[in-house]
Amino acid sequence: MNKRKICVVVTARPSYSRIKSALSAIQEHPGLELQLVIAGSALLDRYGNAVDFIEKDGFPIAAKVFMVLEGENPTTMAKTTGLGVMELTNVLYNLKPDAVVTIADRFETIATSIAAAYQNIPLVHIQGGEVTGSIDEKVRHANTKLADLHLVATEDARERVIKLGEAKDKVINTGCPSIDLAKQITEEPGLNFDPIEKYGGVGKSLDWKNGYLVAMQHPVTTEYKQAKQHITESLKAVKELDIPTFWFWPNVDAGSDGTSNGIRTFRELEQPENIHFFKNMEPVDFLRLLKGSKALIGNSSVGLRECAYLGVPVVNIGNRQHRRNRAENVIDVGYDKEEIIRATRQTMKQEHFPSSDLYGNGDSGVKIAEILATAELSFSKTITY
Amino acid sequence: MNKRKICVVVTARPSYSRIKSALSAIQEHPGLELQLVIAGSALLDRYGNAVDFIEKDGFPIAAKVFMVLEGENPTTMAKTTGLGVMELTNVLYNLKPDAVVTIADRFETIATSIAAAYQNIPLVHIQGGEVTGSIDEKVRHANTKLADLHLVATEDARERVIKLGEAKDKVINTGCPSIDLAKQITEEPGLNFDPIEKYGGVGKSLDWKNGYLVAMQHPVTTEYKQAKQHITESLKAVKELDIPTFWFWPNVDAGSDGTSNGIRTFRELEQPENIHFFKNMEPVDFLRLLKGSKALIGNSSVGLRECAYLGVPVVNIGNRQHRRNRAENVIDVGYDKEEIIRATRQTMKQEHFPSSDLYGNGDSGVKIAEILATAELSFSKTITY
Amino acid sequence: MNKRKICVVVTARPSYSRIKSALSAIQEHPGLELQLVIAGSALLDRYGNAVDFIEKDGFPIAAKVFMVLEGENPTTMAKTTGLGVMELTNVLYNLKPDAVVTIADRFETIATSIAAAYQNIPLVHIQGGEVTGSIDEKVRHANTKLADLHLVATEDARERVIKLGEAKDKVINTGCPSIDLAKQITEEPGLNFDPIEKYGGVGKSLDWKNGYLVAMQHPVTTEYKQAKQHITESLKAVKELDIPTFWFWPNVDAGSDGTSNGIRTFRELEQPENIHFFKNMEPVDFLRLLKGSKALIGNSSVGLRECAYLGVPVVNIGNRQHRRNRAENVIDVGYDKEEIIRATRQTMKQEHFPSSDLYGNGDSGVKIAEILATAELSFSKTITY
Amino acid sequence: MNKRKICVVVTARPSYSRIKSALSAIQEHPGLELQLVIAGSALLDRYGNAVDFIEKDGFPIAAKVFMVLEGENPTTMAKTTGLGVMELTNVLYNLKPDAVVTIADRFETIATSIAAAYQNIPLVHIQGGEVTGSIDEKVRHANTKLADLHLVATEDARERVIKLGEAKDKVINTGCPSIDLAKQITEEPGLNFDPIEKYGGVGKSLDWKNGYLVAMQHPVTTEYKQAKQHITESLKAVKELDIPTFWFWPNVDAGSDGTSNGIRTFRELEQPENIHFFKNMEPVDFLRLLKGSKALIGNSSVGLRECAYLGVPVVNIGNRQHRRNRAENVIDVGYDKEEIIRATRQTMKQEHFPSSDLYGNGDSGVKIAEILATAELSFSKTITY
Repeated sequence: MNKRKICVVVTARPSYSRIKSALSAIQEHPGLELQLVIAGSALLDRYGNAVDFIEKDGFPIAAKVFMVLEGENPTTMAKTTGLGVMELTNVLYNLKPDAVVTIADRFETIATSIAAAYQNIPLVHIQGGEVTGSIDEKVRHANTKLADLHLVATEDARERVIKLGEAKDKVINTGCPSIDLAKQITEEPGLNFDPIEKYGGVGKSLDWKNGYLVAMQHPVTTEYKQAKQHITESLKAVKELDIPTFWFWPNVDAGSDGTSNGIRTFRELEQPENIHFFKNMEPVDFLRLLKGSKALIGNSSVGLRECAYLGVPVVNIGNRQHRRNRAENVIDVGYDKEEIIRATRQTMKQEHFPSSDLYGNGDSGVKIAEILATAELSFSKTITY
Repeated sequence: MNKRKICVVVTARPSYSRIKSALSAIQEHPGLELQLVIAGSALLDRYGNAVDFIEKDGFPIAAKVFMVLEGENPTTMAKTTGLGVMELTNVLYNLKPDAVVTIADRFETIATSIAAAYQNIPLVHIQGGEVTGSIDEKVRHANTKLADLHLVATEDARERVIKLGEAKDKVINTGCPSIDLAKQITEEPGLNFDPIEKYGGVGKSLDWKNGYLVAMQHPVTTEYKQAKQHITESLKAVKELDIPTFWFWPNVDAGSDGTSNGIRTFRELEQPENIHFFKNMEPVDFLRLLKGSKALIGNSSVGLRECAYLGVPVVNIGNRQHRRNRAENVIDVGYDKEEIIRATRQTMKQEHFPSSDLYGNGDSGVKIAEILATAELSFSKTITY
Repeated sequence: MNKRKICVVVTARPSYSRIKSALSAIQEHPGLELQLVIAGSALLDRYGNAVDFIEKDGFPIAAKVFMVLEGENPTTMAKTTGLGVMELTNVLYNLKPDAVVTIADRFETIATSIAAAYQNIPLVHIQGGEVTGSIDEKVRHANTKLADLHLVATEDARERVIKLGEAKDKVINTGCPSIDLAKQITEEPGLNFDPIEKYGGVGKSLDWKNGYLVAMQHPVTTEYKQAKQHITESLKAVKELDIPTFWFWPNVDAGSDGTSNGIRTFRELEQPENIHFFKNMEPVDFLRLLKGSKALIGNSSVGLRECAYLGVPVVNIGNRQHRRNRAENVIDVGYDKEEIIRATRQTMKQEHFPSSDLYGNGDSGVKIAEILATAELSFSKTITY
Repeated sequence: MNKRKICVVVTARPSYSRIKSALSAIQEHPGLELQLVIAGSALLDRYGNAVDFIEKDGFPIAAKVFMVLEGENPTTMAKTTGLGVMELTNVLYNLKPDAVVTIADRFETIATSIAAAYQNIPLVHIQGGEVTGSIDEKVRHANTKLADLHLVATEDARERVIKLGEAKDKVINTGCPSIDLAKQITEEPGLNFDPIEKYGGVGKSLDWKNGYLVAMQHPVTTEYKQAKQHITESLKAVKELDIPTFWFWPNVDAGSDGTSNGIRTFRELEQPENIHFFKNMEPVDFLRLLKGSKALIGNSSVGLRECAYLGVPVVNIGNRQHRRNRAENVIDVGYDKEEIIRATRQTMKQEHFPSSDLYGNGDSGVKIAEILATAELSFSKTITY
């Protein structure tokens, strides 16, 4: 039997975490051959060099694509995407996959979608149908309209993609593969490593054994000028809370310079004693760190997805996750030091929440691989209404 | 009062015809300043050099963008689009418009959409919400999901865009500006020029005064290998019909080489006495030519739009216009010589059809300009459900 | 033993003819592995689709690179080159060759040079050190300054490259591999095929058995506006000479549209009975055709190289080959019908010339392969003075 | 009289310093119109955002070009250059200058050269003919071969460009405009500002009034892996010297990440008390800082040019300036802590050196403008031998 060649394009560190269990399942499936393409910020040292973890995890890489223009503003985001279309078109032309997988809604994911759709290669979109604010919202639904098969993460998302005019049998709720990793670590929980010892990072050493916070806040592209101000509110809140905190650098987006600048400036001026900064962490270690934390602060989608399953309290700041499905573990607050402090203190009072299966129950990777192996693949469609 | 700067990006000859009356109305509107960008095949001699007509029509051109890669296959289509994103991003960055207009659904129109949306410039999509086959179908709806304001051409399209999750007050049926031109020529109909004398073209001279056909058949991208075979069936049909026919070369698309090749080969081998070939014609002249014809044969959207208003019979071949709204003037046939002959003979029997306002009644350009001058412009949105 | 990986980048039909024997010798050399990259117009149907001949000749292709922008003007030439740098950089990054070969002086060859030199890959330049007019002159010497090893075609060229500040031991006269093919066909000369039967082409059938001309005239980029006028003079001359002529379409260059246009217009208006047009021909067949001809007319470098070895009379038009080394077989004329006619009549009077070894004696391919296998490869150099 | 439009493309902070007096002179010349293009790292915050200084200096900017790909390795350097060709081609196409000026030898300067030369725009190369190590050496001489007019900085360079086959009357020694600025500050010397107060920077405050060093060390592209080790030797030497030192971050080059990393790591681990780090400084302030220093340490060309004129002692590390003309103020050392310490101590013993006019005597800007206004401009040339 000819194996189906499945090309998965990973363009950023968080996308890798989110797709990893599906990559494993594709690799192990007897009917599938994995063609893994690593592109964009996943190749860059400044954004945590995800490619190193990927290689360490044993995934062979079919192609590496440098496509990020410096500048981190809306103009370079657009040009990065255009360059991505050109580069990924080459890659797909040479790999000749039977299907291409594009993940979620980062701005450059539409490059994968165009490269596949225009070359008449069946396009599978993972994690469509969700709702948020910012440019991601436009990109996600545009990806849906370019894709032929939709593997969504929630029931709500499934219904929305169908409302968008996609055929019912082309929209399948597989849950989110990020939950698979979360499930795995709940089987043997506990922080089995010292974060600072293992990952270095910068900042003072922390006495985290009696409880700590995790923070991760990305710039929101449509508010890119306020990025520095927003991050500063959060940093002040965490400093004032005076609880040991592991803080993760933002990913590459317009404005991340505002955010990064904000962090750097705050460090120089305030020298916060209770914050230690990391660029990156292996996904499994990161989930363990979350599981062991008192709360996650920031605006990462991890708060809504993995933390729902893990039951970790989340203080979700601003409108980056606007309208994305959330379980009871999330408190929403504005870009305001006082609000952040109040919400964090409140949510830390209680124990963790019960696990929610809103984003799946830990077998998404296997489901995705099976669908990719058996679904009818086509590249032509018409809206259902 | 500051004039709103409206940047319209025209990437191909047919898009120009379709938007011309709106360009005039924008130019004349006291509250608007037109920034006209000419890109893609509209700059190329091989595709009729639309830019010459545009300059002759008196529109000042703010920027010209060479972005078409040679090859005319799905790979170069995708790369052209990627290059278009990069180039148009530069252009918009420098022009700093208050809104950008992207037209309809050609593959490269998504480049305009990305360049605007990613740079937080309000994006206006003209002629969304329609339904067809081929890659255009994906591109059109993706454009809708990237756009902030939707000026559609039919009621049916208006409803569809709203179903796609766009806010009702952001979706307005203006009719199609191409009808404005059609209205203009019906005011003083009649072929007031000799096509061959005025435009040259290649092929024998024709005695067209006692009736003639017009033919225009584009390749369908998802069937690109069959392009040559499809065009040959149509050519054979027209040869056998033995009625004087003006045939227009296809526009730039993957497979147009198949189509062009088919035409060239047929000319060399069959030397059809009743077909004269043109590359291009001024829009007004083209509409007069249509109005005076017995029927239009092919798969151009002109058959469904302008011909509905003009009442010209249309033999619509294949699935390029699959599911697009049509009035009673259209007969659909397959890629089959006999079917084409039969339908043409049948439809020519009768007089022209009564004018239909399915795609508007001739004032779209003015409506569009007025909306662009007064509508609230934003670049942030969330799906309505 | 590890084989050295030699990446040869072929960007156009004539470059292939010129390098073919070296490709064979590399492929057969026990110490070398050939990585053949086909790019630019060598992939395009409009320019004779050299890639088909290459595959038919049995060379495996490591990568294909679409990089030609439509427009055929100085602006798209420059953009094609920029795109070529980006694309070829990717290709070299992935192929990881031990050395890269760039050929001669076409405008896009500098893309290969930059992609290699900037990535610290030893760059071998073939056919540097010659002198001509037009942009090629600048490109050729810039290639020399980017290259680490120079395999030139004449003694004169060897001396010039050394004068340009290259180390003596890095400049080797191998002769031109195009002569290898010429030598091969002189071993069993005679036209063993009917050109029209084998290659089709367009135009009337010709009675060529009693003598014929071959014509091949490219646009000269710095004179690109005059291209149409120049080609028309040549066409008029050939028509008036009234000798059966096989005419080859020009390659892709700025202005080739002027040249192509000129040819098309002339054909339509003048319908020359004595000219048959071809897009392409297999190199060996082309050389046989030349060998059997009374003279070559035009401005191709074939007239100075292969024809010197073959002893074929050449009427060289204009300044495209300005100052390139020539043997006694060449008469230079201006862009002037009368001059062309006069020179052609004069040179046809005599028999062919004795073979000249100015550009080598038929073993260049083997020499080149041997040098590539044994030379010290480095990517760092400093000017010698 | 029509003013000649002179387009100057500045792609990096140091190029601006080097050309500034010529920009002023062009702007003030009655026969010239300046079209200033700011591109590449000159637009980027990470590299000191030269564009801010340029705007503050009152130069209107005709176009900004984002073209730097992230990654800072040889592959992204090459792709940045390719992108630069495409982008700058657009810019020149729209600006339609009478001549284009490309500066010196940074890797991306060849993009300017190609964009101009291929579009038949006369190309003026500033500061050709010098000799160094690394990729700059190849790029500089390739620029020479693409350029039509050569305004060099030393007699030695003038002779070398002529040896490279350029016509004598096209090669003029104008001196280096960077010396103009140096001359200006010698007219009223003395540090009239507090560097840390005015520019911030990072690191401890320094008591610099009793003498200080300046350090500036760039990665050398052909040795890019050793960048971190090299910079560390220098940092150790400076720490051990224990003299207050102002250290400038490197510019954007492959390996600058190695260098930057080296600096960051050293700072975290060693917390040097005597080093203060800056990203950028206004050129005039930087020259004053140099003039007031005991010595410059590193590998910047400033050490050989401006410092020759200023008479400032220089400890020049490694082979980045290999074979570039130097006056008596320079001591060359290897990448070795001990050597650096020894040379610094020795050279500090003496007073400053007498001023050398090796790179001009302070009127280069005016000379350059005058030549640009009066020289015959052409875009076609042939090698002189």
